[in-house]
Amino acid sequence: MFKKAQISAQTHLYRSGEPFKTGAVILDLSKVNFQDSPRIPYFEIETNDKETNLIYKMQKDDVVYGLGETLGALNKRGKIYQFYATDDPLHTPDKKALYGSHPFMILDGEKSFGLFIDYPSEIIFDIGFTHKDYIKITIFSKDLDIYLFECDEKLTIIKEYFALTGKPYIPPKWAFGFQQSRWSYFSEEEVRYVANKYRELDIPLDVIYTDIDYMDGYKVFTINRETFPNYEGMVKDLAQKGIKVIPIIDPGVKIEEGYHVYEEGKMNKYFCVDKNREDFVAAVWPGLTHFPDFLNSDVRKWWGRQYKIFTDMGIKGVWNDMNEPSIFYTPTRVQKLFESLEKAKVEENELGQKLSLIQEAIKNIPNNREDYKSFYHKLDDGTLINHDLVHNLYGLKMTEAASEALKTLLPNERPLLLSRSSYPGLHRMASIWMGDNMSWWEHMLVNIRLLQSLNMMGFFYTGADIGGFGGDASPELVIRWMQLGVFNPFYRNHAALNTRPQEPWQFDEESLNIMRDTVRLRYALLPYTYSEYMNSVKESEPFIKPLSFVFDGKKEKDIEDQFMYGNSLMVAPVHEQNKKGRYVYLPDVKWLNWTATKFEERNMTVYKPGDYYIEAELSQIPLFIKENNLLVLTEPMNYVGEKEITELWIVGLVTSQAVYTYYDDDGLTYNFAKGEFGHLKIEILKESNDFKVQVEKEDPKNMIKVNKIHFEIYDESGNVVKKDMII
Amino acid sequence: MFKKAQISAQTHLYRSGEPFKTGAVILDLSKVNFQDSPRIPYFEIETNDKETNLIYKMQKDDVVYGLGETLGALNKRGKIYQFYATDDPLHTPDKKALYGSHPFMILDGEKSFGLFIDYPSEIIFDIGFTHKDYIKITIFSKDLDIYLFECDEKLTIIKEYFALTGKPYIPPKWAFGFQQSRWSYFSEEEVRYVANKYRELDIPLDVIYTDIDYMDGYKVFTINRETFPNYEGMVKDLAQKGIKVIPIIDPGVKIEEGYHVYEEGKMNKYFCVDKNREDFVAAVWPGLTHFPDFLNSDVRKWWGRQYKIFTDMGIKGVWNDMNEPSIFYTPTRVQKLFESLEKAKVEENELGQKLSLIQEAIKNIPNNREDYKSFYHKLDDGTLINHDLVHNLYGLKMTEAASEALKTLLPNERPLLLSRSSYPGLHRMASIWMGDNMSWWEHMLVNIRLLQSLNMMGFFYTGADIGGFGGDASPELVIRWMQLGVFNPFYRNHAALNTRPQEPWQFDEESLNIMRDTVRLRYALLPYTYSEYMNSVKESEPFIKPLSFVFDGKKEKDIEDQFMYGNSLMVAPVHEQNKKGRYVYLPDVKWLNWTATKFEERNMTVYKPGDYYIEAELSQIPLFIKENNLLVLTEPMNYVGEKEITELWIVGLVTSQAVYTYYDDDGLTYNFAKGEFGHLKIEILKESNDFKVQVEKEDPKNMIKVNKIHFEIYDESGNVVKKDMII
Repeated sequence: MFKKAQISAQTHLYRSGEPFKTGAVILDLSKVNFQDSPRIPYFEIETNDKETNLIYKMQKDDVVYGLGETLGALNKRGKIYQFYATDDPLHTPDKKALYGSHPFMILDGEKSFGLFIDYPSEIIFDIGFTHKDYIKITIFSKDLDIYLFECDEKLTIIKEYFALTGKPYIPPKWAFGFQQSRWSYFSEEEVRYVANKYRELDIPLDVIYTDIDYMDGYKVFTINRETFPNYEGMVKDLAQKGIKVIPIIDPGVKIEEGYHVYEEGKMNKYFCVDKNREDFVAAVWPGLTHFPDFLNSDVRKWWGRQYKIFTDMGIKGVWNDMNEPSIFYTPTRVQKLFESLEKAKVEENELGQKLSLIQEAIKNIPNNREDYKSFYHKLDDGTLINHDLVHNLYGLKMTEAASEALKTLLPNERPLLLSRSSYPGLHRMASIWMGDNMSWWEHMLVNIRLLQSLNMMGFFYTGADIGGFGGDASPELVIRWMQLGVFNPFYRNHAALNTRPQEPWQFDEESLNIMRDTVRLRYALLPYTYSEYMNSVKESEPFIKPLSFVFDGKKEKDIEDQFMYGNSLMVAPVHEQNKKGRYVYLPDVKWLNWTATKFEERNMTVYKPGDYYIEAELSQIPLFIKENNLLVLTEPMNYVGEKEITELWIVGLVTSQAVYTYYDDDGLTYNFAKGEFGHLKIEILKESNDFKVQVEKEDPKNMIKVNKIHFEIYDESGNVVKKDMII
Repeated sequence: MFKKAQISAQTHLYRSGEPFKTGAVILDLSKVNFQDSPRIPYFEIETNDKETNLIYKMQKDDVVYGLGETLGALNKRGKIYQFYATDDPLHTPDKKALYGSHPFMILDGEKSFGLFIDYPSEIIFDIGFTHKDYIKITIFSKDLDIYLFECDEKLTIIKEYFALTGKPYIPPKWAFGFQQSRWSYFSEEEVRYVANKYRELDIPLDVIYTDIDYMDGYKVFTINRETFPNYEGMVKDLAQKGIKVIPIIDPGVKIEEGYHVYEEGKMNKYFCVDKNREDFVAAVWPGLTHFPDFLNSDVRKWWGRQYKIFTDMGIKGVWNDMNEPSIFYTPTRVQKLFESLEKAKVEENELGQKLSLIQEAIKNIPNNREDYKSFYHKLDDGTLINHDLVHNLYGLKMTEAASEALKTLLPNERPLLLSRSSYPGLHRMASIWMGDNMSWWEHMLVNIRLLQSLNMMGFFYTGADIGGFGGDASPELVIRWMQLGVFNPFYRNHAALNTRPQEPWQFDEESLNIMRDTVRLRYALLPYTYSEYMNSVKESEPFIKPLSFVFDGKKEKDIEDQFMYGNSLMVAPVHEQNKKGRYVYLPDVKWLNWTATKFEERNMTVYKPGDYYIEAELSQIPLFIKENNLLVLTEPMNYVGEKEITELWIVGLVTSQAVYTYYDDDGLTYNFAKGEFGHLKIEILKESNDFKVQVEKEDPKNMIKVNKIHFEIYDESGNVVKKDMII
């Protein structure tokens, strides 16, 4: 029942039936040669009319990585995961599904392989939950593509996956600055106040988001002119301060006569339809809406053109939300509820039964699967397809609409493009954040694990809502999370309506000062972060990696709360309440420990491999620079691009030789793809009590403005030699 | 506004207004001399008409312990806690209130003191949440007693607290056996099946619980004779196998004519009344019920007599549940809901508004504060008091009714008495478990922290539902939790309706074998556990203690997931998914590490103080015996008392001298209080490559049957010398 085709030396495609073309894969598969294949290596296959099941027996020490945006341990053994995009705002550990669907896993054990199931509706991964030694993957279809990567090396499996699905998204350089959001800053005044406050308090900031309340009645592509009379002016004024404004965009189009998006969509039949071919109705923020049919390319083009109102204002980024698509309710569902209520009144004579009936009826109102089954997409070839069968693609296709349009609207400019829902392929054009987390210490650990899992899926530019979206945060939690956030490529403090405000100045003076130093540290790391990010994309290797992806050994697989941020820096965030330190495992090589508080204070200590309890007061972040690798810092600025980067600080523990390839480009365009980038190849050679430096500049387009480098090079005894060099 | 009285050298009472006599304190306060005291040491006081606020400025390194059954870190800094008993089945980290109210805290810092607020309604402790350096305690009253323990030593503060409120409850010795429960074993057959299965599989077991479905229509003190035709016979038959049956008891009395408990209660006016002096109506499991007025001593006596139907069957324990009291709904509340529904139908013409109205209305149905404010207790002096003002006492007073009755019904027998809700004082007569947790790894850590916090409150005999109550558990989670459970004095596997069964045989063969060894280990530890427990009560010192209660130092205060179980053994449970080991901090002395799998395998390693990563495969539990302290083991049996304990294994690392005082008594009665107990004083003196043993028996009543002792004594190099001794 499967047919098999070779994709590369290590990758085979196993196809069953006639899979829907999701767009995840960028290779042209029309010409591959298939041959029948009764089986798939490693797996036992069980099928019935409705399902395909893949079963694999794990060995005791096998580790499973991947699965992207899922809760639980980094090693995915011991839980059930469901891929069926959902807007669930309470990320308790038992939840099986979140916003995105990333059915790509890596088995790392005696046998090692990768598996990507390109199927856009429900898939269940039972990874050693029902039986501790078995993986059972259930795809609720017989039409699907399975890619098997047969390879021992995890990093090679990921390279193969990127070769298949495309390289990760590259945001503008300023997207690596700090960002502030809140649901909601309710007016222009509030947004301006926040911007001014950041500048007054000398806390760097690059972006402010306007959440749903900037819209006129939550109508997408409109602006509430009472509260934001001059949104355009606000965007321009903030731009003067180096602060970019990014609006949220929701897919649901309010049903309101005269509202241009509604009228256009209706006239052109751009909306999803119900079984009677009437425009499908579901409620989200604006009340009753229609859903644009993003699976149709005409609709995507039309939708994409709408973003012009923002790009015309000078806006450079878009935050696509609610695109699972989230459904608060449908009239059908509420009608059923009212029927239940009437039934309760008449039929059940016992109060408790009445109540249960109502409670039960009301529980299933939002995001009801029956509603997803009740509407249809019209594909480019005119065929209708039930939404449920392609559910997981909605966010991808909405974001594709934005991405394609922005290529025209912002020619040769890289936008900051975010989506909540996602599917493989979205990582080529945009990125995702981690959705509606809570102000729980436990969700810092979720953040740490997701950074690693999402990077494996190509979502390099990702992060969680710093401080937690839902619930109230303590000052300590916000500080510790701001520290972790320094190592979230997407670094945004965001919180929900009716929760405690958590901008840096909302607490005490000491907390404010720590947060300022913390954000400045992020800007000090900018040359390193940007170089490493660009290099990761080039090398098709995760920007953030688990220890076990870099070092062999058994214990590395146990350590899930330390990670490599680029190739030189290991981060060991303090993520527990009241802790004045934490355990850190230092694998394999020597490490230069920087328990960082601020750029200006760089006291370093050398550690041998081993287990340590590293003290870290509230203001301190335990960082470790890998032996013979280098960290590159610069003086913090108020926003990315405020000043040219003319001076670098190069810090490292060099016991033999270290080479760092510093990369820079204009940070804004795609000209780098045409060769408009520069490299500084910095080589340090250890020499008894000194070191020798060699710097080679390869910079035909003059992208690098560095004219001075400060070296702070440590030896194994912890002695530092400092040198400056003019270049 | 406060008046002050000296209670002991270190304890003062500060009284405001006319506090309700809760019964928490056992001292006779009628004769203490009060004098006016405008202030309370350490605290700033702010009052208004309705509140008393105590404010304290903490130093940076101050640690706060105590507060009993509350979520979050063991060090209570950084969270808000509310004491107002509630039945909340979703213990997410943000929850402020649980089932019990334990307003006793210990400040451990530059200044150290303890504070117990004897007030039975709402209290808020904001411990460094709103401002990280401030404690703000809000008591919503001006009638309260505050006890201040001025003392540097945490253990002395606890001793003083016990001197004030009484010594902890002592269960029968079999209560230290393993226990199995499920909501529900639905029939006699099922209970017998479980009992037989345990015996067939050679897994020790002492208790099976019958949850609510054994009752006839959830009518308290009845039995469903269709499903349990011979409950009595079942109790007797299981007793033959050494298995005790314990029924759940709920306070709500079903309103049903002819039902004897209802009729008696109604006739005698034993129920709480509403504002019209009609019996108050609230719904719980049976549907509409009345709540017995446990604050009245006649009611307590009447209620206590009801337990006779169980004691007559040979039942030796009672599980009081739902006594916050939990309210599913009241007719008043549902009436209001229906009004909202009607209103929604008529007034709101927008579907979404209708829906919001209904959703909002339905959210506040259970455990609504307005319902608690709508009923009254009649005190012994005839005065009526609003329930809300004494809300936190309901569980205490229900349990007092049971405890007092059982003294008569089971003369001179120690019952196993559990309550869900509690207040200080309950620890004298019963204990609590940790309520409706979930099958989350995170809840193992909650379990570990609560063991320590509850022990500080005198709830020595406590534990969590092993494997988690709500949600489905993986085999690995159940195994790791069974391992932690070995060190829960109350050791019970329990799970909710519609969740995955989690008895040891519900998984694979390997899991079953590990669980068998794990439970057997608990029985091997019995002589140690019982000795240490009895000794802890005698010494008024927590049976389970945080490291920081035993060792000084800064890092000890950071370690919350290791604890002292008795005075010889430190437990470092593996509580994270997939982990093959964990970090362990070994303070101050040398430690003998036993990474335990089963009684029969005792390979030990000596460790110096420091930080270690201790490997622990799925079957292994990292345990550490303190230098010059001894662990006492015996051969596991199928149930406590199956055999006499005639042989002991004494294991320890002795570098100079170790003394263990082994205690035993009949395990069933209170005769120990009349001196009917025995001691073996075992002294080991290190001698070059050997050791000398001296055993002194003090056992006038012949309570100790030990006739052989096996010594396994290690030296600092890890060499073991084994000796047997006949006594």
